[in-house]
Amino acid sequence: MRKRSILLTPGPTPLPPEVLDVLARPIIHHRTQEYRHIFKRVSEGLKEVFRTRHEVYTFTASGTGAMEASLVNFISPGDEILVLAGGKFGERFAEIAQGYGIACDCLRVPYGETFDLRDVEKQLARKSYKAVYATLLETSTGVLNDIEGIGELVSKHHCLFAVDAISGLLADRFETDGWKVDLAISGSQKGLMLPPGLAFLSVSSKAKEAMGQAKLPRYYLDVALYDKALREEDSPFTPAISIVLALDKVLEMIRRKGIENIWKATEKLAQATRNAVQSLGLELFAKRSSNGVTAVKVPAGVDGVKLLKILQDEYGVVMAGGQAELKGKIFRIAHMGYITQEDLAAGFECLEEVLQKLGYGFKRGSSVKWFTSGVQV
Amino acid sequence: MRKRSILLTPGPTPLPPEVLDVLARPIIHHRTQEYRHIFKRVSEGLKEVFRTRHEVYTFTASGTGAMEASLVNFISPGDEILVLAGGKFGERFAEIAQGYGIACDCLRVPYGETFDLRDVEKQLARKSYKAVYATLLETSTGVLNDIEGIGELVSKHHCLFAVDAISGLLADRFETDGWKVDLAISGSQKGLMLPPGLAFLSVSSKAKEAMGQAKLPRYYLDVALYDKALREEDSPFTPAISIVLALDKVLEMIRRKGIENIWKATEKLAQATRNAVQSLGLELFAKRSSNGVTAVKVPAGVDGVKLLKILQDEYGVVMAGGQAELKGKIFRIAHMGYITQEDLAAGFECLEEVLQKLGYGFKRGSSVKWFTSGVQV
Repeated sequence: MRKRSILLTPGPTPLPPEVLDVLARPIIHHRTQEYRHIFKRVSEGLKEVFRTRHEVYTFTASGTGAMEASLVNFISPGDEILVLAGGKFGERFAEIAQGYGIACDCLRVPYGETFDLRDVEKQLARKSYKAVYATLLETSTGVLNDIEGIGELVSKHHCLFAVDAISGLLADRFETDGWKVDLAISGSQKGLMLPPGLAFLSVSSKAKEAMGQAKLPRYYLDVALYDKALREEDSPFTPAISIVLALDKVLEMIRRKGIENIWKATEKLAQATRNAVQSLGLELFAKRSSNGVTAVKVPAGVDGVKLLKILQDEYGVVMAGGQAELKGKIFRIAHMGYITQEDLAAGFECLEEVLQKLGYGFKRGSSVKWFTSGVQV
Repeated sequence: MRKRSILLTPGPTPLPPEVLDVLARPIIHHRTQEYRHIFKRVSEGLKEVFRTRHEVYTFTASGTGAMEASLVNFISPGDEILVLAGGKFGERFAEIAQGYGIACDCLRVPYGETFDLRDVEKQLARKSYKAVYATLLETSTGVLNDIEGIGELVSKHHCLFAVDAISGLLADRFETDGWKVDLAISGSQKGLMLPPGLAFLSVSSKAKEAMGQAKLPRYYLDVALYDKALREEDSPFTPAISIVLALDKVLEMIRRKGIENIWKATEKLAQATRNAVQSLGLELFAKRSSNGVTAVKVPAGVDGVKLLKILQDEYGVVMAGGQAELKGKIFRIAHMGYITQEDLAAGFECLEEVLQKLGYGFKRGSSVKWFTSGVQV
């Protein structure tokens, strides 16, 4: 019997038993000493994961909520921003700006490609931007952008640097302070191995200063309210308590393992996945691969939508498809968080079966072997 | 041995074992047929609970997120709104309006009191408002406002009617369509017996028309995005999947029990609580009592903050204190959702012990007996 329901998607990722255990406990009230104590510990632990000495604020929201917070708290009408858009999630920053009537230049690259630092440098020289928005791991394409390099360029201008690290955090190396990131964004349902429902935003001193002047309207996502509450180990609005409690557990697990070790192990799984993909004669979609998710081109003659549907309906293996114009053209395999080499081995075994059913020619068994050589997170 | 940790707070309320069971299951992906099917069922079920034939949208947010959505999607700069503010949560609408620079008249009543319909009528005659914002159960004072009466008055004007039913839903009778409510707001962590993390907004046809013209900026809380996604049984942003799955279970439990029966049973518990409070010689704070939460005046000579602290630290009974200027002056006992008469009996037994310790004079045992006479939800 094959293990049913193998989740190989880049959010939600599978939940460890320790997390399920916390979620199954009776709920506690958030205005108690017990909760305040935990929330304080969680807020400190998030700083370690974000690699920052600044505050990390916790919103009850999808990751997009924190993306919006990274804009509405720091920008004023009349400001211009630059968005590096290489996929659906980069583009989302531009959509948010549009929703708030903020002028936004988009530096674009074709899906699957990353930004040439010289292009970024040129664009920054052209205009004075209030902030630059980039994406660590562009989940829709599997591309890892060079945040360190971009941060270096942005830091030469009087300008904030915001990074969507929703998918990338804990999968790919990410250094908020070290890479001069003023606003780092993440969410609970990726490398943090939690259910979706929490979003995070770290705010540098420079960004905090800008916050005082920013004139865009806001309330639910007003960082000043979260900042005031955090001083009392509190949230301004009833938080997603269960997920915060599970986050406390996860942060303990991460601390025990060590962030550097998690990065290394995730890299090994990612490398094994890329090897497995290529050993099937399949092509990687991303020109610069993330360690969180691998995007694979659907081979000619294979119906990509059908491939994923059979995998899911008949084998219980859930991989992610391409989004919007990439639908049917790529599929994506995650290898972050609690995803293990056993999950990937089983996933590839099923993938091979389905590819064969769909008439794609390759040597059976060539992908699975990459996961039997002691790769362990 | 006394049962530890009896949660008698108006949100979060205790979670039924059926909910904990769902939360403890492996997570599923939201872009699957399985989830879409559940989300469709949940969205239909919410209509029954809201007593509306219109769509109910689900946000991953605290209740305040849906309060903000009830404003930013329907109001434009230059519009004026009327807020009926009888407590902290009524006032929150005014704070949101302020955050968005929207002119807002507040009709106020002292904490603990409700609105005289003649005052509402007069205020509505004075000006042309784009929308009126009211609160069903003002959780901070335990007051139940006459939404049916206010709805009747508002409906005579060309004006939207928005109601915060976050705490009131499933505790006090509430009829979205029947009471001419255009925008009904609720959250997951009250009568719905779920962890906090989901917020809901129902939108009438009249409100939906207004939405097309509304010019306030928005993105994460843009109802149009949720509406478009809902047509595909989807969410625009990764939803708090675990809580949606638990909501599916809760809606099934509610359907089995019947909403009218839940209202009746909750009313009985509320009446027993009010009797219990008064039998201790204590005074009710709310002039018009909700069935969701009972606010009690701290008697002269007793330190209200200490009372709750001892109850919690030494007896594991969590009641809610007064907020802001009511701190130390009232305490609040919830009796909605999964709170049982056994919980209340145990809570009052401990309350009696602590009141006695603090030197308050009353006849021991007089409160607990109200919960032994077969009141059952």
